[in-house]
Amino acid sequence: MLPEEVLRIAADEMLDYKGSGMSVAEMSHRSKVYIAIFDECEALLREVMAIPENYKVLFLQGGASTQFAMVPMNLMTKNGKADYAVTGSFAKKAYKEATKFGDAIAAASSEDQNFSFIPKGFPIRPDADYLHICQNNTIFGTHYAELPETGDIPLVADMSSCILSEPTDVSKYGLIYAGAQKNMAPAGLTVVIIREDLVGNAPDSVPTMLNYKTHVDAGSMYNTPPCYSIYMCKLVLEWIKSKGGLAEMKKINEKKAAMLYDVLDHSELFIPKAAKEDRSIMNVTFATGDADLDAKFVAGATAEGLVNLKGHRLVGGMRASIYNAMPVEGCEKLAAYMKKFEEENK
Amino acid sequence: MLPEEVLRIAADEMLDYKGSGMSVAEMSHRSKVYIAIFDECEALLREVMAIPENYKVLFLQGGASTQFAMVPMNLMTKNGKADYAVTGSFAKKAYKEATKFGDAIAAASSEDQNFSFIPKGFPIRPDADYLHICQNNTIFGTHYAELPETGDIPLVADMSSCILSEPTDVSKYGLIYAGAQKNMAPAGLTVVIIREDLVGNAPDSVPTMLNYKTHVDAGSMYNTPPCYSIYMCKLVLEWIKSKGGLAEMKKINEKKAAMLYDVLDHSELFIPKAAKEDRSIMNVTFATGDADLDAKFVAGATAEGLVNLKGHRLVGGMRASIYNAMPVEGCEKLAAYMKKFEEENK
Repeated sequence: MLPEEVLRIAADEMLDYKGSGMSVAEMSHRSKVYIAIFDECEALLREVMAIPENYKVLFLQGGASTQFAMVPMNLMTKNGKADYAVTGSFAKKAYKEATKFGDAIAAASSEDQNFSFIPKGFPIRPDADYLHICQNNTIFGTHYAELPETGDIPLVADMSSCILSEPTDVSKYGLIYAGAQKNMAPAGLTVVIIREDLVGNAPDSVPTMLNYKTHVDAGSMYNTPPCYSIYMCKLVLEWIKSKGGLAEMKKINEKKAAMLYDVLDHSELFIPKAAKEDRSIMNVTFATGDADLDAKFVAGATAEGLVNLKGHRLVGGMRASIYNAMPVEGCEKLAAYMKKFEEENK
Repeated sequence: MLPEEVLRIAADEMLDYKGSGMSVAEMSHRSKVYIAIFDECEALLREVMAIPENYKVLFLQGGASTQFAMVPMNLMTKNGKADYAVTGSFAKKAYKEATKFGDAIAAASSEDQNFSFIPKGFPIRPDADYLHICQNNTIFGTHYAELPETGDIPLVADMSSCILSEPTDVSKYGLIYAGAQKNMAPAGLTVVIIREDLVGNAPDSVPTMLNYKTHVDAGSMYNTPPCYSIYMCKLVLEWIKSKGGLAEMKKINEKKAAMLYDVLDHSELFIPKAAKEDRSIMNVTFATGDADLDAKFVAGATAEGLVNLKGHRLVGGMRASIYNAMPVEGCEKLAAYMKKFEEENK
């Protein structure tokens, strides 16, 4: 979901970007006018996320799934070992992919409880090249309230479904990556934030396009970047800034999530899926415990314009994805529908 | 460059795609409404290019540069050998990348004549797993008028700068790939057309996202595809179809190119860069032989609204890129300017 204000600007500028006579969708990535958009997008991301100087920002393609390979190919190169916290199906995919490239292990897993919680206080190998986490688990509705302590071992985080939803202390991470399609921009853009010392450690056998150094050296312009998604990302960042930045986004997101969790916590019909202390403010998962009733809930919601509430097949039940662009009114409407549904079906 | 008709539709539909209440830029790739767009795009591409049944069409990310690695990782797996025709800087990059993964050789090269022609009749190794060509060389303005004879050896072509510019006999190729940003869609989409028997030959060590089989098995939806670029590609294909398809595109493109080549062939000032029999109908390269005069030409053109005419630094001089979306009037205007410039500067 994208903010309506952003879509309006994109529509207005589609045929002629600020008098350039060109659409951003057709600009050369080497043109002055496009490079200004690109530079502004990076500057805004650095400002909004308060990214320290010793981190590089990359605008890439291929999604988080490509990062599942790039991370180990570039970072599991010192001791050939990496530890993964397996907290959902994407975290598990990242872990499985890493086993292709070295000694990757699941240092912790909540799979035996269907990923309903975030493991805490688990040991990591002292010679692991990094610890990988998925900071928000979209399908299961869990989120790290606190980061694992890793000492000198770089922490790598997949933030695809929580980036820009709250302030992030980037200095606690070695590498952050995110597919842009949840909170940043249309699909097709992947953002990587990497600490400088982690760049340049990949062997020559790594494909040029999968080597972070290629993109750092070329300022993300080794080949044509996903120009239009980067432009939309810039518009989204301007929108976030105008709303008061990430501290304000967090307040709004917590308020939105609290409306739904409050209904769940006072319900005799709905069962929340995620452990209370690990609840996501982006994805709220719940069920009635009766598949037919769940289906009735989803159908009734759709009839009221509340769409995409069916839970992922791995969890069943319902999932409300309430990313940045979801207005407060959308959550109010859903909370009201939930209460009405319980009233009518208890 | 994108056709103005396409940009108008994209602007109109930005806030609400055909009454869905959603922008294509924010749709879930799993939603019914988006899958209809995606399926229509593939069906149109198959129709417009007359792609045979035994070829798969993939909508990927990462550009031609990612294909430079994917092709050898997936196809140089039978005898571990591949032959490359080195006809420009992208062809050379493709060849260099392949040497990371096996015994790749330059079976032919025109580098010693600054890539001004297409080598013909060169021998290829009988046990090569494929021959790779770059069908249109953007920077140098050359193009294969006839394909090399490869017998049973699969022909692999980078068509980034000529796809959809003329009819293509897909059955002559093992694999075709193209970054979409020249003739198909905004940057961020890569189209691959692969003969079925070439899928599934990559070893397990290949990153999941770089294995064609991953994307064939998932119908290009293993992860979130570049949804918006695919939607724009659909609009471009509808536009091409409405104009009469690829036979008609070829006629128009040849007419446009002939206007410029005709000026060059009757000029005492301008020197064409590409061998006559290998001339591209997408990129017309020329120079005056005097760098200052070239700069004057480019500056004067810019003042008349004829932009992006500076040649690539590897060639110098001028380059007119006249992709599908460039109207006939654009070439008329440029031809007139060239004549006027010669008149005033000879």
